[in-house]
Amino acid sequence: MNYQNAFADAVRRVKAEGRYRVFADLLRRKGEFPVARWRSPDGNVRDVTVWCSNDYLGMGQVPCVVESMKKAIDDVGSGAGGTRNISGTTHYHVELERSLADLHRKDGALLFTSGYIANEATLSTLGKILPGLIMFSDELNHASMIEGVKGARCEKRIWRHNDVAHLEELLAAAPADAPKVIAFESVYSMDGDIGPIEAVCDLAEKYNALTYLDEVHAVGLYGLRGAGIAERDGLMHRVDIIEGTLGKAFGVMGGYIAADGAICDAIRSMAPGFIFTTALPPALAAGARASVEYLKSAHHLREQHQERAATLKARLNGAGFPVLESSVTHIVPVHVGDPVLCKRISDMLLDDHGIYVQPINYPTVPRGTERLRLTPTPLHTDAMFDTLIEALDDVWQRASEQTGVARA
Amino acid sequence: MNYQNAFADAVRRVKAEGRYRVFADLLRRKGEFPVARWRSPDGNVRDVTVWCSNDYLGMGQVPCVVESMKKAIDDVGSGAGGTRNISGTTHYHVELERSLADLHRKDGALLFTSGYIANEATLSTLGKILPGLIMFSDELNHASMIEGVKGARCEKRIWRHNDVAHLEELLAAAPADAPKVIAFESVYSMDGDIGPIEAVCDLAEKYNALTYLDEVHAVGLYGLRGAGIAERDGLMHRVDIIEGTLGKAFGVMGGYIAADGAICDAIRSMAPGFIFTTALPPALAAGARASVEYLKSAHHLREQHQERAATLKARLNGAGFPVLESSVTHIVPVHVGDPVLCKRISDMLLDDHGIYVQPINYPTVPRGTERLRLTPTPLHTDAMFDTLIEALDDVWQRASEQTGVARA
Repeated sequence: MNYQNAFADAVRRVKAEGRYRVFADLLRRKGEFPVARWRSPDGNVRDVTVWCSNDYLGMGQVPCVVESMKKAIDDVGSGAGGTRNISGTTHYHVELERSLADLHRKDGALLFTSGYIANEATLSTLGKILPGLIMFSDELNHASMIEGVKGARCEKRIWRHNDVAHLEELLAAAPADAPKVIAFESVYSMDGDIGPIEAVCDLAEKYNALTYLDEVHAVGLYGLRGAGIAERDGLMHRVDIIEGTLGKAFGVMGGYIAADGAICDAIRSMAPGFIFTTALPPALAAGARASVEYLKSAHHLREQHQERAATLKARLNGAGFPVLESSVTHIVPVHVGDPVLCKRISDMLLDDHGIYVQPINYPTVPRGTERLRLTPTPLHTDAMFDTLIEALDDVWQRASEQTGVARA
Repeated sequence: MNYQNAFADAVRRVKAEGRYRVFADLLRRKGEFPVARWRSPDGNVRDVTVWCSNDYLGMGQVPCVVESMKKAIDDVGSGAGGTRNISGTTHYHVELERSLADLHRKDGALLFTSGYIANEATLSTLGKILPGLIMFSDELNHASMIEGVKGARCEKRIWRHNDVAHLEELLAAAPADAPKVIAFESVYSMDGDIGPIEAVCDLAEKYNALTYLDEVHAVGLYGLRGAGIAERDGLMHRVDIIEGTLGKAFGVMGGYIAADGAICDAIRSMAPGFIFTTALPPALAAGARASVEYLKSAHHLREQHQERAATLKARLNGAGFPVLESSVTHIVPVHVGDPVLCKRISDMLLDDHGIYVQPINYPTVPRGTERLRLTPTPLHTDAMFDTLIEALDDVWQRASEQTGVARA
């Protein structure tokens, strides 16, 4: 066994598929987002416009957020210093959990170090709490939910994406008295489509299942107070467990669930991914709370955000760039369909036009559906739209010729 | 199926075992650590001395760390805004990874959002990269390593804690050509003992295994530059993958591995727990780098830390409080042996004496080995030691009588 070769081979295989990832070395400048400085591999630094951030509203530079963070650092220092149980709970954490419970109109909320861990830890722990559990998971659920479902070590049924007839078929076929959890998302982040929340809740009632809804790409962005799609559609009270993130629209970092107090307490008491990890730094909790509270009443930002996304989609479609029809949200995926072409377009946009949009490839999306995923914020101007469309016009055909991959 | 009851029952079972966890609501005051404000359940706020922080050196309040964080927030804002691949890599991340690679004298380093995820993601991904892998895991490995080993979905062998003869037995019994990983820790955080690094490396060479060493309770604290026990013992170059945290001695948050470049690149390219999560906020990367660099040359702090731990152990043993003999490190575990008594002692220390030390119970330690785990820092004074011993004298006997559990 030659380990060195094994690791090198693993990387070679990724490269051979054209999906080796080169991370762009960026520095945002507070107040200038979406413009940022990009350091190229040869060490040169230049300004670029970021088109693929999940800081969907630019909250990462809003004064109340950054000042809350700095004040917390001044008051209490840098880290939490322990797990939530062993000296790592601060009043910032307590207040943030209250703020999130209020956001989703639930009894309680529970913080995790990331949305990934919130999904993984909660779903896997449901398997421990509910013996005989059967998990019903949408086939396009996020990697962290898939890990959580695996970790639950229970029976699982994968329903076809957003197909409630298929879900009902599977529910009807399962023993009536078995505990059941239906796990799905509101906004699917790579296709920009929306899960059928109402129909799923109807089925959950009919078949006595719990509902687990990932709203990470919706919190802050939908609903009159920014609680997500379930709030927008008047369905929040029908969802048992809502999972969200503090690292996207809220502009900081961390994940959470909001649910009935007994659910939160049981997960809190039993989930390894919650118990055995250092708590979020107080400054992150402070910044996130400021952001959550700010967005509860900043509906104008959500309206601007939707307008920007709709306008960009219309502009792209008008210019002949294929926006995925699935998207009914703020996410603007442009189909490319090949990893090498996708990366080439992305590289040329960056090098030749100062436009940064990361190519999206496997394992983030299925092979053959590689895409550019654009996320316009309220801070992306019409002039930036013009520049983007001109740049795409310039590079797509050239990239197609260079790579020998026909334009889709 | 009544879900409400299922969750409530799960919590009731935890309570019935006397191991229900009540989080202490704390606020540190920068510059005054280990003194902090504690908000009791009735809402009163009072000063307490924290005796159970993993901010082992008090780096959470050191000016270079907190100022680096604040400067980063001023410069670039609050969050990373994306995964490492999709707009979330900043120059702060790049520089911190370089600093960590240098710390451990390895080619590369890879950041994760926590030490928990570093273990879980790396170990589980090794199972994908090395088909036919057999994982040899110390029986007292941390929960995050256990999750990683499970996630690797490979054959595993659990060796008795620190028992290299048993490890060799298991290695010798495995097929010679099978890929093998030996996973263990340097400082075991609950017993304070140290893994047999040299003997494990010898066996790894003899049986052609990779070594994976968790140094989360040692980085910053041991070795001339703070790289851990492997550095202290001149063994760092013999360990293939070193895993560490930025959330304990370094006083911030986050985890990492340091290893050969090909290993880091393969994990980076394939680990869901790395790929599918928002990057650490730039401010955390900046603060962590300042702390790592500071501790590379602050050996006096490590010496003070060891002196404080040794003195506290001697004082406790002299006063008849049973420090676990296993501890040869900075961790000072005092045996109690019962969850109810342990919690009562802890509650009385807090209520009556302003001393905060969280009871440690199952699942963090095996049932019957419940303990108080004291972590004196260089900032804990002789006067604080006096107060602690007097308080233990006062409460232990009373708590024993109240709970009807004999003093061990």
